[in-house]
This record gives sequence, C-alpha cells and structure tokens, in this order.
Amino acid sequence: MWRQASHEWAISTRGRGLYEFTGEVSAWIARNGFKNGLLTLHLRHTSASLLIQENADPDVRRDLEGFFARLVPDGDPLYVHTLEGDDDMPAHVRTALTTVNLGIPVRDGRLTLGTWQGIYVWEHRRSSHTRRVAAHFIGE
Amino acid sequence: MWRQASHEWAISTRGRGLYEFTGEVSAWIARNGFKNGLLTLHLRHTSASLLIQENADPDVRRDLEGFFARLVPDGDPLYVHTLEGDDDMPAHVRTALTTVNLGIPVRDGRLTLGTWQGIYVWEHRRSSHTRRVAAHFIGE
Amino acid sequence: MWRQASHEWAISTRGRGLYEFTGEVSAWIARNGFKNGLLTLHLRHTSASLLIQENADPDVRRDLEGFFARLVPDGDPLYVHTLEGDDDMPAHVRTALTTVNLGIPVRDGRLTLGTWQGIYVWEHRRSSHTRRVAAHFIGE
Repeated sequence: MWRQASHEWAISTRGRGLYEFTGEVSAWIARNGFKNGLLTLHLRHTSASLLIQENADPDVRRDLEGFFARLVPDGDPLYVHTLEGDDDMPAHVRTALTTVNLGIPVRDGRLTLGTWQGIYVWEHRRSSHTRRVAAHFIGE
Repeated sequence: MWRQASHEWAISTRGRGLYEFTGEVSAWIARNGFKNGLLTLHLRHTSASLLIQENADPDVRRDLEGFFARLVPDGDPLYVHTLEGDDDMPAHVRTALTTVNLGIPVRDGRLTLGTWQGIYVWEHRRSSHTRRVAAHFIGE
Repeated sequence: MWRQASHEWAISTRGRGLYEFTGEVSAWIARNGFKNGLLTLHLRHTSASLLIQENADPDVRRDLEGFFARLVPDGDPLYVHTLEGDDDMPAHVRTALTTVNLGIPVRDGRLTLGTWQGIYVWEHRRSSHTRRVAAHFIGE
C-alpha cells in the first residue's frame, strides 16, 4: 500500500557543533511502520547544515569543527556582509561547502545508514538557535 | 491520487555568480496543482552547481563568490587539465565542493524552504552558458 | 503501474581516487525496465563520497584529487583523532566537503545525467576498501 508522510523537527542548538538526531528519525520511521521507501530531510536554514558523519569517536566531530573554523575563519576581512555578526557570513560559506538536503533509502523498516553513520544538524553560528528540519517519506 | 511529472529548465548565465530560479520552480508546482510530495532538481553539468542560499541581502552572494574565488583560484599551477581555459578546472573543483542535486519536500502546495532560502544555479565559468536543470515531482 | 525497488553495490577501491559506476547504475535501470521516476544513491561510509563529475578527460579526476590533497593534507597537526591513521581524519573532512547522497530523475528509461556527467565513488583512504552503495528507485 503506497503512502507518504511529512514531519518536522525543531532541533535546539547551543553554539557551533554537530547535533545528532538519528534516533528521532528512526523513531518516526518505526512509529509509522514504514517498511520500504525513501526518506528525505531538508534543513530550512542558510547558516547550518545537515551532515552524515561518524557517530563513534567524538573527536571526529571536534576535528571537523576545527578544520572548518580554520578554513572559514570568523571576521575575515574579505566579507562585505557583516551586519549580522562576524560569524554570519562564515556560516553561509560553511553551508555552501556542505549541504542542507539528504535522501536516504529505507529498507525492511530501517534507514540504510552504514554502521558508523549518524545524521546531524551542524550549527555554524556561535549563538543558540532552533533549527527546523522538514522530513518526507514515500513508499510502503 | 498518485502522480509524478518531469520538467526541465534552461537557465541562461552571464558569467560567475548565483542565478535564482525559486520562482520558476514554485510556478511549476502551482501550475500543476501538486499538493504533497517530493521535488528533486538535478543540474546536468559539471562546471556549475545547485545551491540553496539566502535570498535577502545580495552581499551574501557576492561574499560567497569572493570566498570561492580565493579558495579555488583561476590559473592554479597545480592543474594539468588546462586546455579548456584557466577557469575550467576551478569550475570542476567548485562543483565538487558544492552539489548538483537537491531534494525538497512539498507540503500543502508549497516548497518547505525556509523564509530566507532561495534556489540558485551557481555558474562557475566566466563566460555565458545555458544550464539545464532536470526536475521531478512524485506525490499527490 | 507504480513500483519501487532496492539494490546495493559493493565497489572495490584501491586507494584514493574516483571509481566510476555509471554503467552499473544504468544497467540496473535497463534490467528492471524502469521508465520514469527517481533514483536515489546513498554511500554507507564516512570516509568516501559519491560524486557526479566529468567522465571525459582523466586529468580532471587527477586534478580534483590534487586539489583536495592540498586543501586537506594528511598528518595535519590540527587533528586529535589520529589513531586510525593520518589519512583517516582527512577522509572524514573530504566527505563533509562533498556528499554521500545523490538523487537523479529517470526519464524515458534513462538517467537525466548530462553528456559529460559520470557517477563516482570517491575513495578518500589510501588503502583498499569495499564501499557499499544503497540504491532506491520509485516510479513507473
């Protein structure tokens, strides 16, 4: 029986870093009894990203953040758009360098994520935000 | 009633920069009366990107272009592939650093874009091009 | 007649570089007689990427690899996560800078890839790996 469904999460962030929500996504799939199909996630912001990354060693997240902080430094004199803070334009650049959309097949009631893959909101601003993620499932 | 549809846009670019076509996408959804489902966009080129970014202050687009021009400079002596011009290999690198695919849920007849999100073709070559974007909708 | 299908490829890599598998994807579409719909690919790893790039001049792939090797050097003293080798954290960063998901419309039995676009697994580790790519098709 074909069906589709929508959902939206509001994820609270407290400054830069990776916030995992794989559990919320898996719970939504289980609660609805989705078996096989396609899950799409879309982050509705321009200064944060969606990222699939290693969920084992927390040092990986720390090093990812460190690399991006060095590649896209705050307060770069290159920028003209500075009124919203010296971390605003770097947040847009980080978003462009990553992505805000994910499409993940669902098989036998489970996301086809690899063993070490987790789904994250990557906050690129230094202050706290509520980040909205739209979800869509189509399948059986 | 389930249905799907395809479309293709030809977007004219006049050198590097971001070309918004959110309006065209929304108009296609409205014209067909799509209510709920999934919209997929695919750019059929290897030297331009699809990007979701802020559509308010034009300085954001200018600064994005400035950051990428510095990170991936034209005429870099690193490259062997130079026959198509000194902006060709940088265009491929910029495309690899961004993306050519977007998947956006449609809810109640509207894209689930955030308030400040626009959909752009990001042209990475200095000369004018016609960029083809394939679209697909599945849903109700 | 609506239908969906899943598949998974195991792609052998022998060190860093781009491994094309466009032919495998097209063959799966042809074998199943898929006409119109959406193909989704998801790489189940955190140290390799999926990439759509030029499939004509092999120098493009060599230059892409060269650019990323310089941007994200092995053995960078920035990293704390080093136990799995000096190419492990760079592989995670390269993955974050690119993507592990692709969504491509299928039209009249063919992927809507552009003339020069090929689909690649981009291996970011120096040693050999088997990389699993989950595929999903929905349509007619």
